[in-house]
Amino acid sequence: MINFRDNVKKMDGYQPGEQPPPGSKVVKLNTNENPYPPSPQVMKTLREFDGEWLRRYPDPTAFMVREVAAKIYGVPADWVMAANGSDEMLALLARAFLEPGRKIAYPMPTYSLYITLAEMQAAATAEVPYDEDYNLPVEGLLAAQADLTFVCTPNNPSATVAATKDLERLAAGLKGVLVVDEAYTDFADENALSIVSRYENVIVLRTLSKGYSLAGLRLGFGVAQPALLEGLIKIKDSYNVDSVALRLGAAAVNDQAWMRTNVEKIRASRAKLAKALEQMKFKLWPSQANFIMARPPGGDARYLYLELREMGVLVRYWDRPRVDDKIRITVGTEEENQGLLDALKKLIL
Amino acid sequence: MINFRDNVKKMDGYQPGEQPPPGSKVVKLNTNENPYPPSPQVMKTLREFDGEWLRRYPDPTAFMVREVAAKIYGVPADWVMAANGSDEMLALLARAFLEPGRKIAYPMPTYSLYITLAEMQAAATAEVPYDEDYNLPVEGLLAAQADLTFVCTPNNPSATVAATKDLERLAAGLKGVLVVDEAYTDFADENALSIVSRYENVIVLRTLSKGYSLAGLRLGFGVAQPALLEGLIKIKDSYNVDSVALRLGAAAVNDQAWMRTNVEKIRASRAKLAKALEQMKFKLWPSQANFIMARPPGGDARYLYLELREMGVLVRYWDRPRVDDKIRITVGTEEENQGLLDALKKLIL
Repeated sequence: MINFRDNVKKMDGYQPGEQPPPGSKVVKLNTNENPYPPSPQVMKTLREFDGEWLRRYPDPTAFMVREVAAKIYGVPADWVMAANGSDEMLALLARAFLEPGRKIAYPMPTYSLYITLAEMQAAATAEVPYDEDYNLPVEGLLAAQADLTFVCTPNNPSATVAATKDLERLAAGLKGVLVVDEAYTDFADENALSIVSRYENVIVLRTLSKGYSLAGLRLGFGVAQPALLEGLIKIKDSYNVDSVALRLGAAAVNDQAWMRTNVEKIRASRAKLAKALEQMKFKLWPSQANFIMARPPGGDARYLYLELREMGVLVRYWDRPRVDDKIRITVGTEEENQGLLDALKKLIL
Repeated sequence: MINFRDNVKKMDGYQPGEQPPPGSKVVKLNTNENPYPPSPQVMKTLREFDGEWLRRYPDPTAFMVREVAAKIYGVPADWVMAANGSDEMLALLARAFLEPGRKIAYPMPTYSLYITLAEMQAAATAEVPYDEDYNLPVEGLLAAQADLTFVCTPNNPSATVAATKDLERLAAGLKGVLVVDEAYTDFADENALSIVSRYENVIVLRTLSKGYSLAGLRLGFGVAQPALLEGLIKIKDSYNVDSVALRLGAAAVNDQAWMRTNVEKIRASRAKLAKALEQMKFKLWPSQANFIMARPPGGDARYLYLELREMGVLVRYWDRPRVDDKIRITVGTEEENQGLLDALKKLIL
């Protein structure tokens, strides 16, 4: 008998979206990847990569890429830490602050990994509902006074953004740590990075998976004052960021123009796709991300998800309260979006 | 005030060996890297890498590289899991099995990360001393009956190997899980992989950091029966192994000839270096790894470490009981080893 910790036995684990093997003929709009390739500078760095950098252990402090990111974020380099994707940042935060007898709070519905992380640490959870318009439930989160509060903004799966002034009220009123998970912020009009300098209990998370088209590389950042990062650095694996991510990540962040160009294309496609979905009587929420949450006319989202899948179009569906009548659609290329719309027309009209 | 968990506040964190910036003019024999480059097949895979693999999330199951590793290990693919270095495997095991009220055991002295991992989980520790010859203290470890028992073999820093029959006695007699950390096994005469098929409570860890010259890539494996791996997979980050490690790792494991050739060179150099050190009156332990633990004549290891550092030769030194009179020397190229010996001659003779 393998005697895992009780909470490990009980939990299910996070279920990532389906990843069809490369080369599969599908329109893949289910895991919020950027449809455009990574920067040519990233590919150049890859082609010129020195085997010596693979032979040796990477810099455990990931200085090379932290320095570049810090410049873009307008903070000192020791206000940035790097991780094996922003998922690792989230996991480190849970492990640093949660244990039995402590509490995590987050608005619902949101990124379901938060629940999994709470289960792993056997922490209590305060799930505070969003209203129908997905305004941040500031009072509810303040009332919860959790040791750790996660806010995903733009929120996954609603794509809606939390107002910076609401986040600032949270930061000021919470005794615990506020985590602002900005994985999708490159596609948004506003972000909360400026709060970090005013509140020592705030950490903002960023990733190269979305705006920078590098989901396969696994590189994320936490931006916070050094006192907060210090505890996270103590508990991370020594060499959590590999040499390839260090160097390709630095090249990607340095090429802001490439990222911004792709983001603008996606934002334009997002507006066009939203308009087409609304014409098909979908109910939408205003998206500030590279995906759209959409309630189909009639609300049979599960049917739509399964039929689309049959037709070779992958979107995301969850059989969970408040989202089981909706699908989440990643904004793809114009061609991919048209493929989705063509399929939908066969199913709905 | 940032209110970390108490045990996070109290712990120090693991201190990795010094990593001088690439291009530094030092003889680097302090972190057990392989002195020879990774396989040309790895570099070829890198040059031909498709940007599409970076754009998309990696396969969360890491099947591509597990399949190749499983073939080499002679087990089914679902007996292998992949991680962001074998350090991540160790951390996952600690998180799956340790919590307050549970216990970890390991022989001492050993890889000091085990202590850090126990501290993170606020678990009790049973540190069972090795005898002077570094025979595995089987009775002591059995008496401890810990929830999790870590044995590093070849052991870091002693480089000595645990007899497979001793590990089998442990596996049979422990109610908890036995972790056989074989990071250095490519340089040894025997390994314990065969135990896995007979004991469901045993997991053997492997890495590409040493034999395969890929410390910078971060790829390690756990080999165990599926019931044990299942719980670890539940708590890992979804995309813990990036697309680059998946593909370069598969290329490396497929090129066994390259790894074996380099290992044989290192074993030959190890014998030569050991002989030279013994002639200089160092006391040695029989090494089955790519490093040598050596007690200098007189035992002032700290002095030697610092003087060597001044002379541009890095070896490893710890100010800890039972190892503070020894240095750990990575076996380098013939030229690097000669550089060390030349420096030592100036200091000792």
